[in-house]
Amino acid sequence: MNYLTLQNQCFSGLFEDEAVAQEFGTAATLGRFLAFEIALTRALAGAGVVDQPTAASAVAQMHTFHPDLAAIARAVPFDGLPVPEFARQLKAHIGVKLAHAVHTGATSQDLIDTAMILAIKELNLLLATRLKQVIATLTELSAAQGGNALMARTRMQAALPITVAERLQTWQLPLSSHLERLQQLRPRLEKMQFGGAVGDRALPTGAGETVARQMAQTLGLHHADKAWHSMRDGVADYASWLSLVTGSLGKMGQDICLMAQQGLDEIRLSGAGSSSAMPHKQNPVQAEMLVSFARYNAVQLGGMHQALVHEQERSGAAWTLEWMILPAMVAVTVRALASADNLLKNVEQIGAPSSAP
Amino acid sequence: MNYLTLQNQCFSGLFEDEAVAQEFGTAATLGRFLAFEIALTRALAGAGVVDQPTAASAVAQMHTFHPDLAAIARAVPFDGLPVPEFARQLKAHIGVKLAHAVHTGATSQDLIDTAMILAIKELNLLLATRLKQVIATLTELSAAQGGNALMARTRMQAALPITVAERLQTWQLPLSSHLERLQQLRPRLEKMQFGGAVGDRALPTGAGETVARQMAQTLGLHHADKAWHSMRDGVADYASWLSLVTGSLGKMGQDICLMAQQGLDEIRLSGAGSSSAMPHKQNPVQAEMLVSFARYNAVQLGGMHQALVHEQERSGAAWTLEWMILPAMVAVTVRALASADNLLKNVEQIGAPSSAP
Amino acid sequence: MNYLTLQNQCFSGLFEDEAVAQEFGTAATLGRFLAFEIALTRALAGAGVVDQPTAASAVAQMHTFHPDLAAIARAVPFDGLPVPEFARQLKAHIGVKLAHAVHTGATSQDLIDTAMILAIKELNLLLATRLKQVIATLTELSAAQGGNALMARTRMQAALPITVAERLQTWQLPLSSHLERLQQLRPRLEKMQFGGAVGDRALPTGAGETVARQMAQTLGLHHADKAWHSMRDGVADYASWLSLVTGSLGKMGQDICLMAQQGLDEIRLSGAGSSSAMPHKQNPVQAEMLVSFARYNAVQLGGMHQALVHEQERSGAAWTLEWMILPAMVAVTVRALASADNLLKNVEQIGAPSSAP
Amino acid sequence: MNYLTLQNQCFSGLFEDEAVAQEFGTAATLGRFLAFEIALTRALAGAGVVDQPTAASAVAQMHTFHPDLAAIARAVPFDGLPVPEFARQLKAHIGVKLAHAVHTGATSQDLIDTAMILAIKELNLLLATRLKQVIATLTELSAAQGGNALMARTRMQAALPITVAERLQTWQLPLSSHLERLQQLRPRLEKMQFGGAVGDRALPTGAGETVARQMAQTLGLHHADKAWHSMRDGVADYASWLSLVTGSLGKMGQDICLMAQQGLDEIRLSGAGSSSAMPHKQNPVQAEMLVSFARYNAVQLGGMHQALVHEQERSGAAWTLEWMILPAMVAVTVRALASADNLLKNVEQIGAPSSAP
Repeated sequence: MNYLTLQNQCFSGLFEDEAVAQEFGTAATLGRFLAFEIALTRALAGAGVVDQPTAASAVAQMHTFHPDLAAIARAVPFDGLPVPEFARQLKAHIGVKLAHAVHTGATSQDLIDTAMILAIKELNLLLATRLKQVIATLTELSAAQGGNALMARTRMQAALPITVAERLQTWQLPLSSHLERLQQLRPRLEKMQFGGAVGDRALPTGAGETVARQMAQTLGLHHADKAWHSMRDGVADYASWLSLVTGSLGKMGQDICLMAQQGLDEIRLSGAGSSSAMPHKQNPVQAEMLVSFARYNAVQLGGMHQALVHEQERSGAAWTLEWMILPAMVAVTVRALASADNLLKNVEQIGAPSSAP
Repeated sequence: MNYLTLQNQCFSGLFEDEAVAQEFGTAATLGRFLAFEIALTRALAGAGVVDQPTAASAVAQMHTFHPDLAAIARAVPFDGLPVPEFARQLKAHIGVKLAHAVHTGATSQDLIDTAMILAIKELNLLLATRLKQVIATLTELSAAQGGNALMARTRMQAALPITVAERLQTWQLPLSSHLERLQQLRPRLEKMQFGGAVGDRALPTGAGETVARQMAQTLGLHHADKAWHSMRDGVADYASWLSLVTGSLGKMGQDICLMAQQGLDEIRLSGAGSSSAMPHKQNPVQAEMLVSFARYNAVQLGGMHQALVHEQERSGAAWTLEWMILPAMVAVTVRALASADNLLKNVEQIGAPSSAP
Repeated sequence: MNYLTLQNQCFSGLFEDEAVAQEFGTAATLGRFLAFEIALTRALAGAGVVDQPTAASAVAQMHTFHPDLAAIARAVPFDGLPVPEFARQLKAHIGVKLAHAVHTGATSQDLIDTAMILAIKELNLLLATRLKQVIATLTELSAAQGGNALMARTRMQAALPITVAERLQTWQLPLSSHLERLQQLRPRLEKMQFGGAVGDRALPTGAGETVARQMAQTLGLHHADKAWHSMRDGVADYASWLSLVTGSLGKMGQDICLMAQQGLDEIRLSGAGSSSAMPHKQNPVQAEMLVSFARYNAVQLGGMHQALVHEQERSGAAWTLEWMILPAMVAVTVRALASADNLLKNVEQIGAPSSAP
Repeated sequence: MNYLTLQNQCFSGLFEDEAVAQEFGTAATLGRFLAFEIALTRALAGAGVVDQPTAASAVAQMHTFHPDLAAIARAVPFDGLPVPEFARQLKAHIGVKLAHAVHTGATSQDLIDTAMILAIKELNLLLATRLKQVIATLTELSAAQGGNALMARTRMQAALPITVAERLQTWQLPLSSHLERLQQLRPRLEKMQFGGAVGDRALPTGAGETVARQMAQTLGLHHADKAWHSMRDGVADYASWLSLVTGSLGKMGQDICLMAQQGLDEIRLSGAGSSSAMPHKQNPVQAEMLVSFARYNAVQLGGMHQALVHEQERSGAAWTLEWMILPAMVAVTVRALASADNLLKNVEQIGAPSSAP
């Protein structure tokens, strides 16, 4: 995912997804930074670190804060992240008298990881919805044409006849397993990040744990027993899940490409792509792209697992690598599910209808 | 994992693990093939496909079967797998009158996948044991030295002091999560493979399902609703888990390498390696190898996910790729856990003891 | 490289590069499509497939062509590529009488691959320039401070003293090798793509070869003996080269991160990043990012090599995978070289000055 | 490549290669260690570091040295490498009076890298021979059947007819490019490793350079301007080349699998594999394995490029990762070339013969 696939309009139509663009966009990120800071100030008051009137005034001020995006963008290449400048602006906006009620006990990674996880939480709802949609479409297809005959092929050779329903099951069952996996992993993934400068939640009056719990509740995330600054198994495991989803869809895409071959003619699709040189051709573009998406995510996954080697209390190198990879994997998975559903709905015929008596 | 690391005695001592070698060895595989066939014949009788006396006679004969390994080895490059020759020999041994009670309804992949999963099931017990051992050793270390002081480092820069216990927690908590993950994934992984030639469990009298269930019970595996010949999410997900384990250990290894640097001197290890040129040096070999193992598995993982694109009812290409990768990942993970435990037990001092009053 | 790193202004400043964005952008691509078509029409005339006056009229018309980008963007998800709609518009613009002089003998892949390679050719000049710049900066640094003393470290342990020049050489020599490699691979990479629908350059009067040669000359590319539609070793090899470059810079970045540790204090940098929680900290952000870039490209490389399995005369799946990966690798490499040079220029002191007499 | 694929006789016949096993085996390694030490002692004499009679006596003794392999194997897990114990034994064998003439100026990495490169040099001859053999077999096949008709397929759809020669060219041309690449990279790869403890060739009387040059000449390797202990671009680039070779063969294998499908029936192979469940089937096992080998090496390649981030003067972590990966890539490539040639020789018919008049 890059300049060509996201910003070049000759190609972006194949890859873009509006929901993902929005969740990982500037406005969403800055909005979540502010939500984090507001939740923090309230939690600091709840834990007695800041007195309530001060917190209330600070929160009121924060609601009128509009970050100077240009200044943030200028600072990023220097600081390596947007938070130092964001926090500086926010404190300046709040005023020196209230500034101690803001960002206290927090570090850049707390904001960035929390914002990332909030985006992922939203997208997980979308992913689950789309997964269920593909499962439903497969169920419908099986109800309609599952009784058709199909030559099973093993090692790319014709083997023995099966029903279409058998093949469809191999496309569908893994998707149901993926829903189960998502449910199991979400509590390990969608966790509040709050640890402060070195991850030990050091706040006066032993308030760190209380603040972390309250923020998690406010922001709708799970509480983490310890800040996961350097424990990245949650996101790496999630990346594996994304690749499992695209991998299963890639198997379906590959099968459909093979079924669409002239000579096999086991599937008929509407809405296939055209060719600039051969007007007679109908290309199974979406089926092919499911294969591309599967192989892409399988490759990226290795990078998320390299990033598990996250040294000491915070690794700039490993963390940056996550930024470069994880949002692309999410985007590809969301898109793959949409393509898969569309592709299945374009199946006009699959297998050979049994001859009527 | 290759000729150099497994068979060259100048290097193999760094990589080999006897338990893994045995589980993936010739004898274990052939033993499991035979156990599969015996369980199948019994299940065929249980399902009424074969009559009981015939099955009993066949089973009795099978107990005296000793495969001609040389003939199997000769057939493998031609057939691409050992089962056709194994089954041929077995049937010849049983005799033509009983042969129909043997291998009926089964295919090569049923035997090979089941044998692989039985090996993995054994090794999962070992992996869980070793994980718990590392967790226990970390608990002991924290009890003994967790109160020591350590300079937290973020982005490889000195930040603020923490206790050693804080750092140790970041090594330990992910391991506990991995135990939870293993428990959740085992029912999706340790599944009986039984589908027959094209995966549809086609047996006379609709006996396929009954046979599959009974074999699962006999062999101590979970029942699969459908043969997972071409649904490889179970093994790909398992590979992710293996890489999560080594990734977490790699983070620990990297931290220890950094702590052992002269100038930081945050850890003192016994039993470190020597140098041919600099006798004064003590190299943290095992800590480094945890990093190597983490990066190795992170790389391999991509291959297991490429293999999710498993076309039609059986992909020779994708399946072979699994054979080339998964056993190596298991071996590395088993070894990494042993190394990690050993390394932690060699920690003489970690962090700086608080000065007593 | 994704929505977060390219389009979110909280992060994009760390990753973006204007030159790369432009070369892989919509305008450049459409401009190169048109340049391809003009060169083709001229070459068709040169080879006698189209008569000269027709070609001249068609070329004149083409110079006034402005594609309807919105219509192209709408067609892309359907066709899988922008060329069918582009060619349709172009022919409509030229008019039915001249249309036969346009796009004849060409296929979508001819245009897209040629446009991609023209972008890469431009960026290779930039890459070579930046490589030479980093080499020059290292030479200057060695001249200025190469005599300083440095403790060599092997297996992360202090070994014996060396000069700074020794370490700098290990950063510099591979870059010179990369220049040599680039020179050797360019003729295999920067090749005209012209093969027509099925890659056999089938044109009346055996003109295919002539047209291909003339187009290569016009567009400043090397001639390919055969269309490389399905022979992707040129681009896969180039991806390897990109990863070699970032890998060598990553080694330098890792070394600088290690040198910048308090306790080692072997380098002093100006312009390092700030922290939102610890104002006293100076983070070696650019050095860390060189490590991220190296690991990112090392991961991506695997995808470009997966795409070598490019079935038959054109693989939509493998080709799309290239689009998703290669431009990102180029962008990261261009950016890494700029960061490396900047980082080296920010070195205030490296190693320990020898005490003057 | 692992316990299953190399040591389990139910599978090893698909993967093993005797030549590779030997070159990376214990005896070859120890033989090369000794050859290194003998060349070093002679070079030390040539450079005046050791006097000639001492060197001659030492060399004479070395010729009678038989390492105690068991003791080396015991030391390896502790030292992380075999050389410290090897050198200790060698010096003990030579005796204390001559010991200073042995191993002086060398470090473990010098021996291990040199031994590895000597193995690779031998195998490069084999690889070149096998590449040429596959090219020749393709030439013969094209001469015999190149005129046959074949339906070109783009995006897995029938496009237009081509000749078989067209398809064969896309299999052959990249192999010729790979020979050219090998020739270009060998001087950057097959380089003497000699740098001493910290890579600066520190020897009395400035003899380091002289010794390095003479050793290179004796051992038949190229001279390196500087020890490449931490500059791993040579081996990473070589890994890329190996993956290019298997990638090109994988494309051929994939094509052959597709051609062999019933319904397409574009190729007829002899010697294909049998099935335990379907005696009528003929599986294109070798063609499938070319795809597996291609995907395997594409995956491994990422690991060799991760190892470019080789910190400081020697990285145990990155170096160990190379050991785990590179020999496997070589083995797979050597085997893939043998399989490819065998597969092509088993082609009975490809494409459709033109009907005679």
